[in-house]
Amino acid sequence: MIVTCVYVHVKSDAVDKFINETITNHRKTVQEPGNLRFDFIQQADDPCSFMLYEVFEDEKAVADHKETSHYLTWRDNVANLMAETRKGVRYKIIEPSDRTRW
Amino acid sequence: MIVTCVYVHVKSDAVDKFINETITNHRKTVQEPGNLRFDFIQQADDPCSFMLYEVFEDEKAVADHKETSHYLTWRDNVANLMAETRKGVRYKIIEPSDRTRW
Repeated sequence: MIVTCVYVHVKSDAVDKFINETITNHRKTVQEPGNLRFDFIQQADDPCSFMLYEVFEDEKAVADHKETSHYLTWRDNVANLMAETRKGVRYKIIEPSDRTRW
Repeated sequence: MIVTCVYVHVKSDAVDKFINETITNHRKTVQEPGNLRFDFIQQADDPCSFMLYEVFEDEKAVADHKETSHYLTWRDNVANLMAETRKGVRYKIIEPSDRTRW
């Protein structure tokens, strides 16, 4: 299992559009067989800052996600909404170590 | 529901001890009635960097957690293991909006 935290800083006039685009991507992503979680959260003290907490089964599931039409549409539609390049940070899971808890 | 991402940078000779202390805290925290998730993850390209992905029902559940003996023991036992002060970032949840998905 692989966790990627994707940090996105959105232009102040693009927040609503970014939220709509990402909700659409979220709803399709959680239906992928290799997706375990995809949480879409907004920083409490900065409504222009978001985090996508993405958990996939393995490297193949991550690669498969990046080839889906919903990911590619999201990537293209949000490209001009960001104030800076988004940043992804990879993590290894320590707990929960039990696969059924994901 | 409230998400807090806690970022911890641990001294290089304290990684194993920090992991053990945090696993103990994790196992008790997920039994709290107000806890929805508590993921303990380690940065893939920096084994000294960790994130605690903590999700609680509400502000009361967050406050209750900080009064538990397992939290207070963890806080005291890891204080000298950190290379710098840990940082917590609060987030609002956009998706999954369905409480049962947490």
